[in-house]
Amino acid sequence: MPLINRKDVFIEWGDCDPAGIVYYPRYFVMFDNATVALFAAAGLKKHEMVKTYDMVGYPMVDTGARFILPSKWGETITIESHVSEWKRSSFDIKHRVLKGDDLAIEAWETRVWVGRHPDDPERIKSFPIPEDVKARFA
Amino acid sequence: MPLINRKDVFIEWGDCDPAGIVYYPRYFVMFDNATVALFAAAGLKKHEMVKTYDMVGYPMVDTGARFILPSKWGETITIESHVSEWKRSSFDIKHRVLKGDDLAIEAWETRVWVGRHPDDPERIKSFPIPEDVKARFA
Amino acid sequence: MPLINRKDVFIEWGDCDPAGIVYYPRYFVMFDNATVALFAAAGLKKHEMVKTYDMVGYPMVDTGARFILPSKWGETITIESHVSEWKRSSFDIKHRVLKGDDLAIEAWETRVWVGRHPDDPERIKSFPIPEDVKARFA
Amino acid sequence: MPLINRKDVFIEWGDCDPAGIVYYPRYFVMFDNATVALFAAAGLKKHEMVKTYDMVGYPMVDTGARFILPSKWGETITIESHVSEWKRSSFDIKHRVLKGDDLAIEAWETRVWVGRHPDDPERIKSFPIPEDVKARFA
Repeated sequence: MPLINRKDVFIEWGDCDPAGIVYYPRYFVMFDNATVALFAAAGLKKHEMVKTYDMVGYPMVDTGARFILPSKWGETITIESHVSEWKRSSFDIKHRVLKGDDLAIEAWETRVWVGRHPDDPERIKSFPIPEDVKARFA
Repeated sequence: MPLINRKDVFIEWGDCDPAGIVYYPRYFVMFDNATVALFAAAGLKKHEMVKTYDMVGYPMVDTGARFILPSKWGETITIESHVSEWKRSSFDIKHRVLKGDDLAIEAWETRVWVGRHPDDPERIKSFPIPEDVKARFA
Repeated sequence: MPLINRKDVFIEWGDCDPAGIVYYPRYFVMFDNATVALFAAAGLKKHEMVKTYDMVGYPMVDTGARFILPSKWGETITIESHVSEWKRSSFDIKHRVLKGDDLAIEAWETRVWVGRHPDDPERIKSFPIPEDVKARFA
Repeated sequence: MPLINRKDVFIEWGDCDPAGIVYYPRYFVMFDNATVALFAAAGLKKHEMVKTYDMVGYPMVDTGARFILPSKWGETITIESHVSEWKRSSFDIKHRVLKGDDLAIEAWETRVWVGRHPDDPERIKSFPIPEDVKARFA
């Protein structure tokens, strides 16, 4: 069983659009934060990780979401997140947004582990994900 | 040939994250705006459309993006958008982000045409897309 | 002593700009959320309040902030909020952002209590703030 | 006469909140972009300036806004910006938001010119604003 993190998110007035429901790009902000929270739950706080592992971040390569139920301001949703696959220098994350027992959104991410390019600090380059990072999610 | 709209977007300081590149949820904001601009290019300004067609909007059902090249603040990208398919009450949009001649991002959207539910104005309901709306994109 | 609400806010990666510190417009989002939280602490959840009091919201009339210390992603700040003055149909709020014992930001808001205009539901109009609302903050 | 820059901003659906008007923190994003545009109008593109002058940015010290008229999605506003005062290492900016001939918002900013701290590249430090920068706004 992989580590699953659950994060409650209160839907703020400013998360919503004139239709009164969450403006969908805001969900991607919530998912990005949920990925940070998943790593933190594994003992890997992002702002420490960039120093420990000399990495710059894990930029998005591919992401998508299927929206099933809308949410309104004043509601609270739960985001369940886990790493669904580790590859050499990239990894996949799945997020499920729940409203009570109902599935509201399914989302997925492929991210790549990057550091500064050895030849040009202005550029970034993918690196193999450290094994001890992966081990923390088992 | 479907109508293709091209929209230049200047990457602002505030669009970017501590890595100096666009914070990816911001691209979904740009894509949402690009869809509004595509409809406007077809003569359908969204704020007029909600009145003309008694619709509430075209909420997102499914969306995704593949990120190929990052962009930095101070750069200008071009978003090319078109409707790739019309269905009864939903439609698909494709966005291509270009940096000069290079493809930087490919994104797709499935949106649904909705209005107020006849039985409950608090809820929304999908409706068939008016034929004259579709005709404007040909 | 007025009711003071304290709200911890974790600074997310996406809250920060290429300088690695909070992109200042994000603080106004945090302050808006802090005002919602202050009302909730007084037993007045905004999404219930709009129904109970037939109001539309409390739009901003005047706001400002003095930034003393920057904050970085991965840090947690505390926002202390209270109503500093009630007027007939408007009210003032003060927010203090603390990093540990240090004052990082001072901000103030003047908001007005509005509902739908009786003659035109498309427009909004200020109304006297209900006395029982004010009483809950004492 | 100081240099005044005028910037038209189309109000997007996603700029607006459930009341259908601009979510006010979004105005601060627009003002930050308007300041970037003002410098660009003076021949000082921000992404070039950080290299030319070895600066990190001009973080906000103090800002505020008075909101007079709301704006809705689908409208276009004009932001007029100018430097109202140059000090040794800081400067003041004034923004006026116009809807046609009507003043919709007045905003002001005090920003400080900063670079990397010579003793610690993790920190920033204020520096005197170069005279040739100031001269470009006359």
